[in-house]
Amino acid sequence: MTAQRADARRNYALLLAVASEAVATHGADASLEQIARTAGVGSGTVRRHFPTRHALLAAVFHDRIEALCDRARERAEHAPPREALLEWLGLFAAEAATIGGLATALNRDRTGGAPGDVYCATDQLISAGEPLVRRAADQLTPGATITDLLALVTGIALATEGHAAPAAEAERLLALAVQGISPQRR
Amino acid sequence: MTAQRADARRNYALLLAVASEAVATHGADASLEQIARTAGVGSGTVRRHFPTRHALLAAVFHDRIEALCDRARERAEHAPPREALLEWLGLFAAEAATIGGLATALNRDRTGGAPGDVYCATDQLISAGEPLVRRAADQLTPGATITDLLALVTGIALATEGHAAPAAEAERLLALAVQGISPQRR
Repeated sequence: MTAQRADARRNYALLLAVASEAVATHGADASLEQIARTAGVGSGTVRRHFPTRHALLAAVFHDRIEALCDRARERAEHAPPREALLEWLGLFAAEAATIGGLATALNRDRTGGAPGDVYCATDQLISAGEPLVRRAADQLTPGATITDLLALVTGIALATEGHAAPAAEAERLLALAVQGISPQRR
Repeated sequence: MTAQRADARRNYALLLAVASEAVATHGADASLEQIARTAGVGSGTVRRHFPTRHALLAAVFHDRIEALCDRARERAEHAPPREALLEWLGLFAAEAATIGGLATALNRDRTGGAPGDVYCATDQLISAGEPLVRRAADQLTPGATITDLLALVTGIALATEGHAAPAAEAERLLALAVQGISPQRR
């Protein structure tokens, strides 16, 4: 690696660390100008690395989303179907409620947003979670899809992310949605 | 009424109409400066009528929240307990998913926000909905409180408000949460 490329890598790593911190603190709409100032670079440098907000959020959340998808695949191979799905949904709820900006980014992804501002991890999560839903299908309320479950859990995360104990609160509300507010026997 | 007071009332009514439109379009953080410009008044006039964002949101949503609380009281008197609660939650979900900025304002209310930016309708909704929960208690999953139910429905509204058919989508997800993703008999 040339010294120049090593420099570029270090600059990118610094910028990503600053961007992650900014998104964790200020959420999915953290200011690009502020990120540039904190990293001590020009806003042109930020835009070269992250041409859109989507690119920024994708980079910031990349490892977390990968890890969540890995957890889904592991559970699909090993755990009993119902537990596998519910544990993974609980993990997702806790992460989305805790990691600043993630629930908002995922929500904008699903419900639309300005072009270039859309963060596309939802497709990845749908692909990873769908086998868990398929395996557990006969223990789920008919018609419950991975898309519905991700929407419900994202909503729970949005409603709990400002809570004093967001992960525990999100898991508690998810448990209520799993058992049902008022289930009727079929 | 003096001509001066009649003028002041007209100005307030105009400002509230402009503010309602701005919040419906741009959400709970609609720009106060933009509202002043559209209404053709100075920003000092806006701040005199709405000293905080809380005051602005309270004024904008006042009639809707009152109407929702009235619906709760009517149902508590007339409808069978389970139906009364579920219909009211459905109505709330549909309204919160459809009315721009309402779900965000309610969510900030519950999970905290900058002082003066907090909109306090949640207490009103809790008071109005609590009798519905109490009446239906023996048909609900134990431990489900009005606070939990409002949090869940607000989350559902946040996750569906950008959807093409937000009210129908919110009611559909609520139905899943009512029946339960995977209820186990107790």
